[in-house]
Amino acid sequence: MREAVGQSMWYGDPEALELREALAALHGCGVRNISVGAGIDDLLGLAVRAYLAPGDVTVATLGSYPTYVYHVIGYGASLETVPYADDGSLQLDALAERAHATGARIAYLANPDNPSGAFAGREAVAHFIDALPEDCLVLLDEAYGDFVAPADLLADTIDPRVVRMRTFSKAFGLAGARIGYCLGSAETIETFNKIRLQFNVNRIAQSGALAALGERDFVAGVVAEVARGRDDYAALAARFGLRTLASRTNFVCIDLGSRAAAEAMVEQLLRCGIFIRKPGLPPLDRYVRVTVGTPAQRQELAAAFGAALETVRATGTVLEAAPKR
Amino acid sequence: MREAVGQSMWYGDPEALELREALAALHGCGVRNISVGAGIDDLLGLAVRAYLAPGDVTVATLGSYPTYVYHVIGYGASLETVPYADDGSLQLDALAERAHATGARIAYLANPDNPSGAFAGREAVAHFIDALPEDCLVLLDEAYGDFVAPADLLADTIDPRVVRMRTFSKAFGLAGARIGYCLGSAETIETFNKIRLQFNVNRIAQSGALAALGERDFVAGVVAEVARGRDDYAALAARFGLRTLASRTNFVCIDLGSRAAAEAMVEQLLRCGIFIRKPGLPPLDRYVRVTVGTPAQRQELAAAFGAALETVRATGTVLEAAPKR
Repeated sequence: MREAVGQSMWYGDPEALELREALAALHGCGVRNISVGAGIDDLLGLAVRAYLAPGDVTVATLGSYPTYVYHVIGYGASLETVPYADDGSLQLDALAERAHATGARIAYLANPDNPSGAFAGREAVAHFIDALPEDCLVLLDEAYGDFVAPADLLADTIDPRVVRMRTFSKAFGLAGARIGYCLGSAETIETFNKIRLQFNVNRIAQSGALAALGERDFVAGVVAEVARGRDDYAALAARFGLRTLASRTNFVCIDLGSRAAAEAMVEQLLRCGIFIRKPGLPPLDRYVRVTVGTPAQRQELAAAFGAALETVRATGTVLEAAPKR
Repeated sequence: MREAVGQSMWYGDPEALELREALAALHGCGVRNISVGAGIDDLLGLAVRAYLAPGDVTVATLGSYPTYVYHVIGYGASLETVPYADDGSLQLDALAERAHATGARIAYLANPDNPSGAFAGREAVAHFIDALPEDCLVLLDEAYGDFVAPADLLADTIDPRVVRMRTFSKAFGLAGARIGYCLGSAETIETFNKIRLQFNVNRIAQSGALAALGERDFVAGVVAEVARGRDDYAALAARFGLRTLASRTNFVCIDLGSRAAAEAMVEQLLRCGIFIRKPGLPPLDRYVRVTVGTPAQRQELAAAFGAALETVRATGTVLEAAPKR
C-alpha cells in the first residue's frame, strides 16, 4: 500500500481485474462472478438501487445492520421486519414466511449478524434460501464471515438467487481503505457494473486487498486473537453476573438488563476514554456491544468495567425514569 | 499518505471534518457548505439522484463529460443537449434557451470543459446562471478549475442555484485516491449527506487531500508545466499543419480532419506504446485528445507523431470507407 501511494496520480483499475482474479481463484468461481466496491455499504446500495423499485418490499431482521435500511429508505423501498428472538438469535423461518407474506424482492441476512453476533450455519442458511419465494434475491452480508470456518459458511457455489458480500474491513484490518466485494451470478454482477461508479475503489485499497489475500497467517492470527477476546469479554461479564450473547464476530453483546442501564454504561465507559456501542432496537437495546480490541485495550476495559457498572447500578433507577435523551 | 496507510484498520472520518475545515478556509465559506466525495463522479451521482426524478430533464453540451450522462441515464432522467460550436467552443446562450424550452431541473456545465478544453470566463458563467430558469440547479464541474487563475473562475460566494465541483484528481495528482468535493448551499449539502455513503472516502485519500492543500507551490508548478505542455502540443500540431483547440485543461485536442483519421491516429500511436484518447461525438469526433505528460513523455509523442500521421494520411481514404469498428 505504501508503494501504491507513489502511483496515486494514476487512476486505479476500474475493473479491479488483478484483485478479482485472485478472489475468483480463492472462491473457485469466475472473474465475472465478482464485483469489487468501496466496502459492503457501496455494494448494498447498488443492490437496492438495481433490484428494489420504489414501493418494492424487502425483509430483514429488525435492528440488524442499519446501513442496509438506510439504502432501502433512500431508494424509496419498503422494509418489512422480523425481530430477533429474545435470546438475540435470528428467526430465519419467520423471515422467510414474512418474505412470502409481503411478496419481498430482497431478503437481507447479515451472517454472522451485526449487532447481535448471532450466526446461522451452512444448513440453516441453505434451508432459509430454499424457503424464500422463488423470485426473492438474498443479500447475504458476510462482513464477519472471515471469523467463521469456511466449512460453516454456505458453500462457494454460485447460486443465482444469492449475492454474497465480503469485506476487507474486519478480519483483514482495512476498514479505512473502503474495499469489499460480492459474489453472484454473472447476470447480477453485470447489473452492478451497469450502475456502479467506474472508478469506485481507491488504487491503494486495491493494492492492499490484493496483498492482504496473501497474508492468510496474519488473518488466521487476527481470528484467533479475536476468539480469545470474545472469551475474555464473556468471562469479564460473568464475573459481574452479566449474560453475553454467543458471538461469531469481532464484538460481544453484554446484557445490562435494561436500555437505560446499557445507555448509562456506554456513558460511564466513555468517561474513562473507552468507546463502546449499543444496539438501538428491542430486544437488543438492553445490551452494550463491545468490540474486541488488543489485549492491552481489553485490560483497560476490564480495569474500568467494575466501577462503571457500580455507578450504573447505583443510579440505574434514576436513569430508567429520566427522559429519553 | 504513507503514514495514514498504517491507520488503515480504522475507519476514516465519515464527516471528513478536518479536510472540510481546510476547504472552507480556502473558499471562504462554512464547513456546512462543503461535501466531500469519492471524486466528482460520486458527487455527480448524488446530484442526479437527489434532484432528477425519472423523466425530469437536464441539459448539457452534447459530447461533454460522459459520466454525467451515465448517471442521468442510470437514474432514468432525460438528457437534452446542445452541440459544441464547430470551433469546439461552448454555446452557453443556446444551453440556457434549451433549459427554458425543456423545463430542465439541472444544467450541467464542465468548465473548463472535458473533452474540448474550452473555457467560459467569470462573466460568461455568471450570465449563463442568470439566464437559466429560476428553479434550475447548475452543476458546475470545475474538475480542471485548478488550471485556471481563480480570478477567471466564478467568485467563491455560495449561490443556492449552483453546486460547484472540484477534484484532487487533476492538478493535485491524486486521481487514484478518489477524492473530490463540492461547494453548495447548506441545504444542498445536507441533501447530499442524506444519501451519500457514510464512509464514502478512503482514510488515506483524506490525509492526502489535506496535505496536498498545503502544497500550493507544487500545484503551481504542475499548472505551469501543464501550460508548457499545451504549448508544446500546439507547436507539434502546427508543424504538421494541424489545428488545435485552445485548452485551459491538462489536455489538447488536435484536429485530424475526420473521425476515421482521428481513430487511425489513436491506433497508430497505440502501436508505439502511446495511449491517447478521442472524443466520440461530432463535431469533436475528428479530434484526438492528448493529455499533457512529463517533458520526456511529450518528447516521446513528438518523436512518434510524424510517422504515425504519415501512416494515417497514406491509409486515410481506406479507413474512411472501412466499416465502423
